[in-house]
Amino acid sequence: VTAPVADEVLGRELRHVLRPDQVRLGAVDRVTYGYDATYRRGLPAAVVFPESTEDVSAVLRLASRLHVPVFPRGAGTGLSGGAVPMGGIALVLTRMRSISVEPEAMQLVAEAGATTADVQAAAAAHGLYYPPDPGSQHVATVGGNIAENAAGPHGLRYGATDRYVLGLTVVLPNGEVLETGGRTLKNATGYRLTQLFVGSEGTLGVITRARLRLVPKPPPDTATLLLGFAGLSELGRAVGQLARLSESLVSLELLDRHTIAAVAGRGPVPLPEGLAGVLLAELRGYKDVLPRLAQQTADLARAAGAVVVQVAVEREAQAHLWRMREEVAAAVARLKPTKISEDATVPLDELAGFLADLEAIRREYRVELVVFGHAGDGNVHPNILCREGDAEEMTRVEAAVAAIFQAALRRGGTLSGEHGIGLLKRDFLPHAVSPAALWTMRELKRLFDPQGILNPGKLLPSTGGEAP
Amino acid sequence: VTAPVADEVLGRELRHVLRPDQVRLGAVDRVTYGYDATYRRGLPAAVVFPESTEDVSAVLRLASRLHVPVFPRGAGTGLSGGAVPMGGIALVLTRMRSISVEPEAMQLVAEAGATTADVQAAAAAHGLYYPPDPGSQHVATVGGNIAENAAGPHGLRYGATDRYVLGLTVVLPNGEVLETGGRTLKNATGYRLTQLFVGSEGTLGVITRARLRLVPKPPPDTATLLLGFAGLSELGRAVGQLARLSESLVSLELLDRHTIAAVAGRGPVPLPEGLAGVLLAELRGYKDVLPRLAQQTADLARAAGAVVVQVAVEREAQAHLWRMREEVAAAVARLKPTKISEDATVPLDELAGFLADLEAIRREYRVELVVFGHAGDGNVHPNILCREGDAEEMTRVEAAVAAIFQAALRRGGTLSGEHGIGLLKRDFLPHAVSPAALWTMRELKRLFDPQGILNPGKLLPSTGGEAP
Repeated sequence: VTAPVADEVLGRELRHVLRPDQVRLGAVDRVTYGYDATYRRGLPAAVVFPESTEDVSAVLRLASRLHVPVFPRGAGTGLSGGAVPMGGIALVLTRMRSISVEPEAMQLVAEAGATTADVQAAAAAHGLYYPPDPGSQHVATVGGNIAENAAGPHGLRYGATDRYVLGLTVVLPNGEVLETGGRTLKNATGYRLTQLFVGSEGTLGVITRARLRLVPKPPPDTATLLLGFAGLSELGRAVGQLARLSESLVSLELLDRHTIAAVAGRGPVPLPEGLAGVLLAELRGYKDVLPRLAQQTADLARAAGAVVVQVAVEREAQAHLWRMREEVAAAVARLKPTKISEDATVPLDELAGFLADLEAIRREYRVELVVFGHAGDGNVHPNILCREGDAEEMTRVEAAVAAIFQAALRRGGTLSGEHGIGLLKRDFLPHAVSPAALWTMRELKRLFDPQGILNPGKLLPSTGGEAP
Repeated sequence: VTAPVADEVLGRELRHVLRPDQVRLGAVDRVTYGYDATYRRGLPAAVVFPESTEDVSAVLRLASRLHVPVFPRGAGTGLSGGAVPMGGIALVLTRMRSISVEPEAMQLVAEAGATTADVQAAAAAHGLYYPPDPGSQHVATVGGNIAENAAGPHGLRYGATDRYVLGLTVVLPNGEVLETGGRTLKNATGYRLTQLFVGSEGTLGVITRARLRLVPKPPPDTATLLLGFAGLSELGRAVGQLARLSESLVSLELLDRHTIAAVAGRGPVPLPEGLAGVLLAELRGYKDVLPRLAQQTADLARAAGAVVVQVAVEREAQAHLWRMREEVAAAVARLKPTKISEDATVPLDELAGFLADLEAIRREYRVELVVFGHAGDGNVHPNILCREGDAEEMTRVEAAVAAIFQAALRRGGTLSGEHGIGLLKRDFLPHAVSPAALWTMRELKRLFDPQGILNPGKLLPSTGGEAP
């Protein structure tokens, strides 16, 4: 990037390519669009609100000409700092939210700024199902979901966002519009460009529109089990056994004892003292079969060491159990003002060991570490609660975060299962992938964004992976 | 590629990097490994049988140094000419067939030359399931499956091979070994390199080993319906309605009347005269529920115009119905000596129209066109039976093939759903993807294979997609 363009010049030029109400330069807007759901803050020089692919293309052509960085963002619910701008242009896609359902082709077309919940609702209105369900689904946008390859509790059974992306409209950094994929449910025609943009965290192109696959409505009935364990090793091993039992298991969530304590008092379910953690298992199927499947699941859990086994089949009783999981985010956020949400993911056969590692890290670094998340696919969310202003505490927190990554990698795990690398984990990337993989990633970035103007400083590390 | 190296020099050099029994230069071997399951033939200068990733790396380093093209292949069951060599080295991966199951992590590691059936059996031995089931599963290799992103009848419910690939060992054209992905079931750590190699048809790197995700065994019981339709438009519209009904529908296969006629006499099921085609629907679930689901499916099919509805729940009766589908490949191959298997795929809401297009093409070009395949995801297999030696007929056949592609593309479809582009469809690619997409594909090829030595002449067209 060459000599920076003055902010006034940038503002004036942006108002040539967009309407005045699509360009904001004031301090309030710049601060408002300077963050995501992490504690990291940035400050863009300008905030723009495109309303079409053409608008995005015009902004990127301008940015290319002026060598100004562009930071695409949806609702700012990301948990890796991926949407935090560092100068340049914050490109806010939330005005692009149209959804058009094609029920007979089992798909829909959504603009990037449509929320996940709106996509789910649009599918449901036609008797179809869009499975990805990240925790932020009522706010988060599908563009962001695709950029991060978001998942959620039902990812165990239905996979992450990637499985549902049939095609994309992507604006490349030079402003060119690339259409990938198409309307067919299967496609073996050329390189899989669609899947290269999924999970690319807004660093290769700006996703403006997606064609999303829908699936038949799942069976109508559910059963929920609450399974309590006295030790984390029993719990961790039970997860692997439960996950193998049946495809009727559609989610398997973990709350460790520190999470339970945070929810306690607020949570509707009184739990016995002395549990190391609980699993919430959701089975989905037909009511003729569910009691039997629930019984099998309960038996397996008991054999694996569960000391508390509750089975709920009535809708009310199930909702009661799940309320505990839904309370988690709010409850742990109340422990201390700053929440650092990690996303380290391990192979299923290493989960028990990793949970022990996390307990040891909590003690060693004296941090308020709570562990919950999607146990069934090894994707747990270690969250550290802290006070950003307390320098001594933050030093321990940073060391604990590094220790969490190291523990996950030592166990054949990875830095992120669904939150992405973004700003927060980029410098850990060289420890998580091979030099050849890192070099390949750098070359892909160079191919699509030779000027390096699109979401710079994200995903790729500051050093490492140079040509061999 | 510079001046070609003499074949004797190539053979001598290969015997420096591999054992003598791993290098074959005789005419019989060169002819034997000069074909795949299409009618296209090539002739390699040498045939090599690597036994490890290191062997593959050594061959590619040598090939890079000598500027000799390398054509990777598994069992040669491909249907797009992707493994047909044109001079150079045929790299046969069938000696690399080890499989190592990690049941507690719900995955296995297979070398590229392991057959799909061996992978399925290894999973089943641990109570797990590997769903991809291409028709050639007992012969085809997982390396080839991944390179082509193969699917099969159960792709409707369980997706194609891409969904099961957690990580790959890939040898790049310069001999460097790239490890992608890892042991976790979810992974949002950097660009999705694994998925870039899936479906890349051996043009970006040689897959030598894959880490494959396994899923729980599906429910134990099935029901099968045979649904006969008097008209293709009713049949085509019924497919879309059936596909939306329930996730218990795990496959939905089509046989048109020409396919039925080919099977007739050999097929165990006598069908009434005058049917335009039949659908075979497989429901999977628990026996408590299946009769009800089968009834719903039958009712829906009747409402959609089915004039024949048979429901089989006993294992024997179901096997009886499926035998008709299993006979198809052999039965149509008996019609005439040369079989051209197309794979054009359309959106579900265009299937009825596309089936009408195919019927019109059959008449217009007077070709022996039979249509069967995976109707439930719009992935039908129009097969033309002909005599390679009959020049006049072959002219009509070539025109008919072009007309099939044009019809599919006009309906928003694509050239291939699961067979890939290979040699046969490469020059149709510019009609199926946008100029920007084609340019991007060319750039990706250049990035991974700047010398153009890996499977040249495949996937990318001979012209088109140059830099804008």
